[in-house]
Amino acid sequence: MSKVLITTAPFGDKNRLPIELLEAAGIEYLINPLGRKLKEEELVGMVSDFDALIAGTEQITNKVMGAASKLKLISRAGIGLDSVDLLAAERRGIKVSYTPDAPAPAVAELTIGLMFSLLRSVHTVNVQMHRGEWHRHFGRRIPEVTIGIIGAGRIGGRVLRSLAGFGTSRIFVNDANPDLEVAPELKLEWVGKDEIYRQADLISVHVPMTVQTKNMIQREQLLMMKPDAMIINTSRGGIINENDLAEVLSGGHLNGAAIDVFDQEPYSGALAQIDRCLLTSHMGSMSIDCRTRMEIESTEDAIRFLAGKCLQGLVPPEEYEVQRQGL
Amino acid sequence: MSKVLITTAPFGDKNRLPIELLEAAGIEYLINPLGRKLKEEELVGMVSDFDALIAGTEQITNKVMGAASKLKLISRAGIGLDSVDLLAAERRGIKVSYTPDAPAPAVAELTIGLMFSLLRSVHTVNVQMHRGEWHRHFGRRIPEVTIGIIGAGRIGGRVLRSLAGFGTSRIFVNDANPDLEVAPELKLEWVGKDEIYRQADLISVHVPMTVQTKNMIQREQLLMMKPDAMIINTSRGGIINENDLAEVLSGGHLNGAAIDVFDQEPYSGALAQIDRCLLTSHMGSMSIDCRTRMEIESTEDAIRFLAGKCLQGLVPPEEYEVQRQGL
Repeated sequence: MSKVLITTAPFGDKNRLPIELLEAAGIEYLINPLGRKLKEEELVGMVSDFDALIAGTEQITNKVMGAASKLKLISRAGIGLDSVDLLAAERRGIKVSYTPDAPAPAVAELTIGLMFSLLRSVHTVNVQMHRGEWHRHFGRRIPEVTIGIIGAGRIGGRVLRSLAGFGTSRIFVNDANPDLEVAPELKLEWVGKDEIYRQADLISVHVPMTVQTKNMIQREQLLMMKPDAMIINTSRGGIINENDLAEVLSGGHLNGAAIDVFDQEPYSGALAQIDRCLLTSHMGSMSIDCRTRMEIESTEDAIRFLAGKCLQGLVPPEEYEVQRQGL
Repeated sequence: MSKVLITTAPFGDKNRLPIELLEAAGIEYLINPLGRKLKEEELVGMVSDFDALIAGTEQITNKVMGAASKLKLISRAGIGLDSVDLLAAERRGIKVSYTPDAPAPAVAELTIGLMFSLLRSVHTVNVQMHRGEWHRHFGRRIPEVTIGIIGAGRIGGRVLRSLAGFGTSRIFVNDANPDLEVAPELKLEWVGKDEIYRQADLISVHVPMTVQTKNMIQREQLLMMKPDAMIINTSRGGIINENDLAEVLSGGHLNGAAIDVFDQEPYSGALAQIDRCLLTSHMGSMSIDCRTRMEIESTEDAIRFLAGKCLQGLVPPEEYEVQRQGL
């Protein structure tokens, strides 16, 4: 009987269908007993007996795969592949699949919500009100600010299209492979990243984590931004350097930041001391509908694969190429 | 020389143009020295010498007008007239003007932002993260919820139109005078308020404060709502009964609430003890552009009036009728 280890957490929480699918397929499964992102050593101690992983964002390294002698499939519930050593998987003959479309709507909506919170200081005022303080903050509206989107793929493209209804003025966009048709209803200006750092009032980052994007926004880039600019990261932790961001914010630069993703998760660090830094707990994909879709798609691929059928979400060669170039 | 008392606060803070307009017109002015919403007694002690008020949401009662023997104009920076005793003004021959269009875009954008925060528990998670706690909350997306809008006028109509870009499913709308063309791009269902309370997941209130709407949503209505419903008030304090809301939330009913307006402002009360109640400080109109537009429009009307010209924002007879019916 095939055995599947589900490392992503939560799983089957709001909708039991993925669990029912596994049971109907006669697959033995174990759900992450810690209920949180696993560390490499924890995974190493857990994987030996399993044919497939239904994985979250935990690091699936060569060492983890080395401890998993039966492993034939890593089925990622989600889009990012930075956590999976694709080249090690390739060497070991382990297939990798993912669900790149499922999380996009939820991440885009969270991003739009964070934009509005930053623009109007909703997060800061909420904390003050709960402390019994009454301050009326001035804010800005979408049509009054220059927006900068770095990465206009599945998620960044959706963010752009959602903004169309709010009467935007200037939107700067940067992407390694610009899709000039991404939001035909908007007048986008395709520019270099430095121009976005220098000119945008509200910047949102939607790039994958690669060797090129790790620490893409450090002290230098943050200090290039306008003193009252705002920045959002719902992509991957470490693309904006957290320590640099905390230092720059503490120094009084930038009007605010909204950070959903962290180098180490669960996060604890200096950003938690800064009121105007809005923090969420990697909740981009955490809408019931998108999370359910991710779990079902990754589970179905695992079931298909273990029954000898084709994977629907097989990771394409370009993703391997990204990691090959990065090494 | 004419004298104007500016009771609204802040004023001329982000854009000095309204102050410059007064100075260019040779008008003597005093800006609210307390920098916050004035109480009736404070106003009574302040108004005696002035020809016109540029007013905020403070109560301008018959008593206040009685203490203002020279007063000939109340120019409201904003839309709501519940704070002005229009019938007393009429009896005393005091004209009243307002700026009904200026705040709408800012209030609508704040409302949309509060919707996203509630749907994804952004406010709750932010507080937890700043306390060093990591919980990943499930949320819902706009297309997954039934939305209920009570009041589809200048602001409610804008909220509806802004939602169009997010792929809504069901939208219930209620209005005393339905404008069936308010958002032609959406499939709206015009229903009674009780149907909204019973069926909507996310309810937002955009009605003026009148005798009919005061305490419109009390314990009874709150308990009619789904256990996981969410409610937003960016209209006027007291339309949702604050004490009832605090009690109902404390009892575990409702998933969350976002309240921007209060019976007594500055607010301090039981809602501040409830984490899932998102609180803001009457910031609906507080975007720099809309606030500036309100200040300029109300100042220009005061200047016009004191120069013997026609008011642009003269309050229409219907608003007097509302108060006449209410007494």
